[in-house]
Amino acid sequence: MNNDRFSGVLAPVITPFDAQLKVQRSRLADHCRWLLANNVNLAVFGTNSEANSLSVDEKKLLLDYLVDDGIAPHHLMPGTGCCALPDSINLTRHAVTIGCRGVLMLPPFYYKGVSDDGLFASYAQIIESVGDARLRIYLYHIPQLSGVPLSLELIERLLKHYPAIIAGIKDSSGDWNNANAMLDRQWDDFRVFCGSESLLLATMQQGGAGCISATANVNPAAIHQLYQNWSTPEASRLQDNLNTVREIFQAFPMIPALKAAVAKFRQEPHWLTVRPPLVSLDEAAQQSLAEHMETSGFSMPEGQ
Amino acid sequence: MNNDRFSGVLAPVITPFDAQLKVQRSRLADHCRWLLANNVNLAVFGTNSEANSLSVDEKKLLLDYLVDDGIAPHHLMPGTGCCALPDSINLTRHAVTIGCRGVLMLPPFYYKGVSDDGLFASYAQIIESVGDARLRIYLYHIPQLSGVPLSLELIERLLKHYPAIIAGIKDSSGDWNNANAMLDRQWDDFRVFCGSESLLLATMQQGGAGCISATANVNPAAIHQLYQNWSTPEASRLQDNLNTVREIFQAFPMIPALKAAVAKFRQEPHWLTVRPPLVSLDEAAQQSLAEHMETSGFSMPEGQ
Repeated sequence: MNNDRFSGVLAPVITPFDAQLKVQRSRLADHCRWLLANNVNLAVFGTNSEANSLSVDEKKLLLDYLVDDGIAPHHLMPGTGCCALPDSINLTRHAVTIGCRGVLMLPPFYYKGVSDDGLFASYAQIIESVGDARLRIYLYHIPQLSGVPLSLELIERLLKHYPAIIAGIKDSSGDWNNANAMLDRQWDDFRVFCGSESLLLATMQQGGAGCISATANVNPAAIHQLYQNWSTPEASRLQDNLNTVREIFQAFPMIPALKAAVAKFRQEPHWLTVRPPLVSLDEAAQQSLAEHMETSGFSMPEGQ
Repeated sequence: MNNDRFSGVLAPVITPFDAQLKVQRSRLADHCRWLLANNVNLAVFGTNSEANSLSVDEKKLLLDYLVDDGIAPHHLMPGTGCCALPDSINLTRHAVTIGCRGVLMLPPFYYKGVSDDGLFASYAQIIESVGDARLRIYLYHIPQLSGVPLSLELIERLLKHYPAIIAGIKDSSGDWNNANAMLDRQWDDFRVFCGSESLLLATMQQGGAGCISATANVNPAAIHQLYQNWSTPEASRLQDNLNTVREIFQAFPMIPALKAAVAKFRQEPHWLTVRPPLVSLDEAAQQSLAEHMETSGFSMPEGQ
């Protein structure tokens, strides 16, 4: 078992559904292989995976399927943080058992205004209950959706108690001051990932680890290219190009837009489907997205 | 099977845990019986039940236990709205199958800024998938925790498509204008419950159905008394008395405070325990709560 920490680019892998809203697992595995071929690792069950619209059992079965189908668990960073403690323990234990290199963990996100003591107890209970030295947790800070921010003090307390297990964070707040404050602290081998490639260059320049970004689902090769070349004179131009693509997708609801792009480029209309409460792009929006992509010259890369 | 709609007072029943954070189901059943003896029905698995810290399987097993233990399902309005559609379907179906008179249903609450179309699709999918004419749904509007408000337009659309199934709403927004707007519409037999007894008199005067309130866990008899006597000259004084008790508890984190009160009056210290991310009242807060209760002359009523 190799539990070295992640760096580079990961995609919160979008999840394909059929007309009955059932996960199309072989199509998911294909998309994972395409991402890996583009040097992007797999944060399955992230926000953009519609993970919070999947049951714990669905997620466990999907992890089993992906690994059985040949996706090495070394590439997997599944999201395992749920509202209910038993669910987080159950799913995290399963991920560790099958060899996932790390997990991305939301705090419990229903109750608001909870204290650092309560959040610490929540993470500690999961760690102690899983009780496996192979566990590597990447914290997930996304207050605009969770409503539960992770403070610097909480992170320091977790690092003090579980230095081998608390491996890093995905900061999806979009607040550069927050990411920068974490990077300034220079916690030992703590991996800071920005939640959007629009901050990738800045993150790398400050000693960050990479990004875990929605648009890595459609633009993986170019994002990886900036990751590899962030310290070269090319970096600024590469960042500008990434921003142009990002802006196309940000003009639409992100998850339906990513799926619409994949549906179009793969000519697989099933990719348009989302689970409620999300809504697929309607035809006018699909058309508008297609026009914006064409105008900018954007297309999804081949596998290799 | 009797699916007449609820009215009166319901408690979002607090959930007792042992030191290992496992649900103490016989103690839960005892608390349910005590509430029933005080004329309060059972909104188990509400916000104040720490329902979002329980797994779907825990909730299904607990429902089975309560019914097997002699709690008539006619008294039960379990919360069954989860983030993930399959979970909401699974739990709602189970509740209907064992004969629960209604369910209280949160919208899927992770994704924010979702459209009425997406929320309608979510409720519709659950209704169609459960596919049982006995289903009665009470919508749950609590935007300060869910982050997903239920608009009047959404409710009207649901009522138009499922008039027999959409039975009412719990409005926990605390926004009287919102409750009043729903009551003004006079939707046919639609039951509007306020989420706090502090609005009970106003709700009843405008044609509402009652309240589903946290503090019904400790003050059920007095709240029921106002419900029964809202149209008498006593009502204003009864409302004032309820407000006094409510204010005691509102000065503390509500769920831990309710549990601390029950622990004190029943002399059952296990009731103090909460699941993370919540935190039990510390000793100083317990002492302060006890003093406030004593000063106001408040105590929990006997069963009969």
